[in-house]
Amino acid sequence: MIKKTCLLIAVTLISFVGIAQTNDEAQLQKIYKTSLTNGKSYEWLDYLSNQIGGRLSGSFNAELAVEYTKEQLETLGLDRVWLQPVMVPKWTRGIKEFAYIEYGPGETNGVNICALGGSVATPAGGLKAHVIEVQGLDELEALGEEKIKGKIVFYNRPMQADLIQTFEAYGGCVDQRYSGAAEAAKYGAVGVIVRSMNLRLDDLPHTGSMSYGDLPVSKRIPAAAISTNGAESLSTMLALNKDIKFFFRQTCKVFPDVQSYNVIGEIKGSTYPDEIITVGGHLDSWDLGDGSHDDGAGCVQSMEVLRLLKETGYTPKRTIRVVLFMNEENGLRGATKYAEVAKEKGENHVFALESDAGGFTPRGFSFDCSDVDFEQILSWKPLFKPYLIHYFEQGGSGADVGPLKGNGTVLAGLRPDSQRYFDHHHAANDTFEHVNKRELELGAATMTSLIYLMDKYGTVAFNKIKG
Amino acid sequence: MIKKTCLLIAVTLISFVGIAQTNDEAQLQKIYKTSLTNGKSYEWLDYLSNQIGGRLSGSFNAELAVEYTKEQLETLGLDRVWLQPVMVPKWTRGIKEFAYIEYGPGETNGVNICALGGSVATPAGGLKAHVIEVQGLDELEALGEEKIKGKIVFYNRPMQADLIQTFEAYGGCVDQRYSGAAEAAKYGAVGVIVRSMNLRLDDLPHTGSMSYGDLPVSKRIPAAAISTNGAESLSTMLALNKDIKFFFRQTCKVFPDVQSYNVIGEIKGSTYPDEIITVGGHLDSWDLGDGSHDDGAGCVQSMEVLRLLKETGYTPKRTIRVVLFMNEENGLRGATKYAEVAKEKGENHVFALESDAGGFTPRGFSFDCSDVDFEQILSWKPLFKPYLIHYFEQGGSGADVGPLKGNGTVLAGLRPDSQRYFDHHHAANDTFEHVNKRELELGAATMTSLIYLMDKYGTVAFNKIKG
Repeated sequence: MIKKTCLLIAVTLISFVGIAQTNDEAQLQKIYKTSLTNGKSYEWLDYLSNQIGGRLSGSFNAELAVEYTKEQLETLGLDRVWLQPVMVPKWTRGIKEFAYIEYGPGETNGVNICALGGSVATPAGGLKAHVIEVQGLDELEALGEEKIKGKIVFYNRPMQADLIQTFEAYGGCVDQRYSGAAEAAKYGAVGVIVRSMNLRLDDLPHTGSMSYGDLPVSKRIPAAAISTNGAESLSTMLALNKDIKFFFRQTCKVFPDVQSYNVIGEIKGSTYPDEIITVGGHLDSWDLGDGSHDDGAGCVQSMEVLRLLKETGYTPKRTIRVVLFMNEENGLRGATKYAEVAKEKGENHVFALESDAGGFTPRGFSFDCSDVDFEQILSWKPLFKPYLIHYFEQGGSGADVGPLKGNGTVLAGLRPDSQRYFDHHHAANDTFEHVNKRELELGAATMTSLIYLMDKYGTVAFNKIKG
Repeated sequence: MIKKTCLLIAVTLISFVGIAQTNDEAQLQKIYKTSLTNGKSYEWLDYLSNQIGGRLSGSFNAELAVEYTKEQLETLGLDRVWLQPVMVPKWTRGIKEFAYIEYGPGETNGVNICALGGSVATPAGGLKAHVIEVQGLDELEALGEEKIKGKIVFYNRPMQADLIQTFEAYGGCVDQRYSGAAEAAKYGAVGVIVRSMNLRLDDLPHTGSMSYGDLPVSKRIPAAAISTNGAESLSTMLALNKDIKFFFRQTCKVFPDVQSYNVIGEIKGSTYPDEIITVGGHLDSWDLGDGSHDDGAGCVQSMEVLRLLKETGYTPKRTIRVVLFMNEENGLRGATKYAEVAKEKGENHVFALESDAGGFTPRGFSFDCSDVDFEQILSWKPLFKPYLIHYFEQGGSGADVGPLKGNGTVLAGLRPDSQRYFDHHHAANDTFEHVNKRELELGAATMTSLIYLMDKYGTVAFNKIKG
């Protein structure tokens, strides 16, 4: 009898698992179909990119983006849409930067540069000096003040082309951009020029954040990125003649912090309203392009997650919240504020997903979570196979969800194909026409599918805490 | 004692497998690194695309491409490079096509069309007729001659957007393009207009092959593709007013067959020279763009396979042959000839790999092979994981390797990301700037890795035949 009962239980369990699987399969199918045939993400991105454009923190465009996305969220029939105030830094580029290499009296080659975000200006008439080329921060000490003082330090270590994941190649280079000026200033350099974080050879300079650390204001030196073609040219000319000089002029400026907002919308959970699942991207962007890949794509995909859940008739058990974070690029103030407020209110964030790696074909996710949670996630992998989503790995999530870490919160980042990302990242060609509609929509559907599963089954770590 | 021996054998086997694995890992690493840091594929494609351009079978450009690729193969130190003669069809587009929708006396809307490959011309002054819109070939019978006679049949079934693999969506539509004219002519239609095989809405018409089947020459009617925007416009206007007329003029023409060539190069196998492994793409292309994705990419990747094997110091056991097939697009004469000659000579083709799905990020391969061979292939899958190559599925290989089917030959096709492919396929924007260097190089490395493994371990089916 016991045997029979066991068998019955086993059979029941198997059918139950079978049905659950089938329901999940059907729900994912609905999500993907709706995204690909009746999606809104591409239309939203068109507006953000082409009607608003680049959305640097503290700019008028950033405020337009806040208004627009709030209005759009309000059309979705969510339970609540609100703005979360946050003070953000305001840095302006000023007039277009100008630079040349001088290799003889009156003999110059123009090159394309752009100020790094947060850099000071050059003197009004520009800055001209000899150049010393280095492959990284660690070369400065060996060279010493004697060889650096009065010169422009030219950081020229390229992104490593044989790394398959381009974000790794970026991670291996970006210290030059972020800390290059602070370090070179310590040895008396008068400016720094950094090779653009770009795997292609082209004429576009790529901006990005930098920091002077604790360097006093009076010691700060201007920093600019040079296009990869410009870097190659400068390096070649230096190899031929160490006496060449580099001239650049930039008029960027830091203003006092200004008021801005995170844009938030939520569907209240039907069963566990106090368990919050957050999905987001960052609404600010750099100013050279229109921020379509970085991170307009992530914003519209996150908005689309909530719309797709509603459109497919799914009622979330947990509270699902979209957060469009302000100021990821040069301050992370929005993410910091969001996590602070969550802590103050004692909110339970069980899962937070970020999309900030471009609107390219999704390949999967990376996770920052416990092993038991990761095991549960891996059990869902077969559900994603029909959609060619195969990448489920531990290690890293995203900058904006990072501050929510702790208390068993599962963090994740969408991982799209990364090969083209740094062709556009922080450059003038991060524009709408480089986003493919289907790729964007597949990303939104993939995110929605994971949010659906996380909502339906909950996270292991948090379920354990609940008991 | 027996137990100990077994243990010893087991341990030896495990270490052996371990070492083999390690060697394979190291070889794949070398292949990928060389392709990404010291590749030639992109430079070759630049020449094919920008110095030669579109390479329609029988054209002067196609012959330039034969010369150029032969010359380049000759620089690689292969054991043999040769041209294999093959007669190919010659069809010319003539002057640019012209079309409009007439919705009132003197009131017209211009639309973008292009003749389908193989179509006859319209009368010299063009063709104007009423239009009947259908969603597919099967609607013709129901409509019957009465409703079709004297009209232009407009095939407007779009590619299905919710299919994840775009080639499936293509497969579900292309009958309209290929057989639409032949079928419509049977009911007295005077011409056909086919919605372009494109998942995007844009203004570019996409050409492609069509056939009149056994329709007598006198019954043949002209066929053209209309851009997706044009198709939407025509359909909307028809819904408003069935009396609108469509005008088009095209001056395309079929000439007698001309002499052309497959371009072939090989490295003779060191151990099993009679076992041939073929890798290839097709050298001809349509004429509207420069054929960068279709299939310049596949050609240069296939050439690069042999170069990478040499460059990484690998000595193939089997004969490795690159074949640049002529006339895939409108005849498949090159592939047919290659297989014929192989049969005549009694060649043993153990493996044939094709790249003809664009130069986008590679995701894996599809295979046409026995289950035992597929099992062996699956055992190699972990080797590809660091390169994000995850797709190994049975079902389909490619048009050019197809005629080699039989005698246990393993056939395979590279499967790159397919989302953007039909944005460019057979259209004026199939051009070099839409190929990303890294994506192309990753494809070449992925192909080389599979060829290396197939060469090293042989195919199961053929090893069995050998005994």
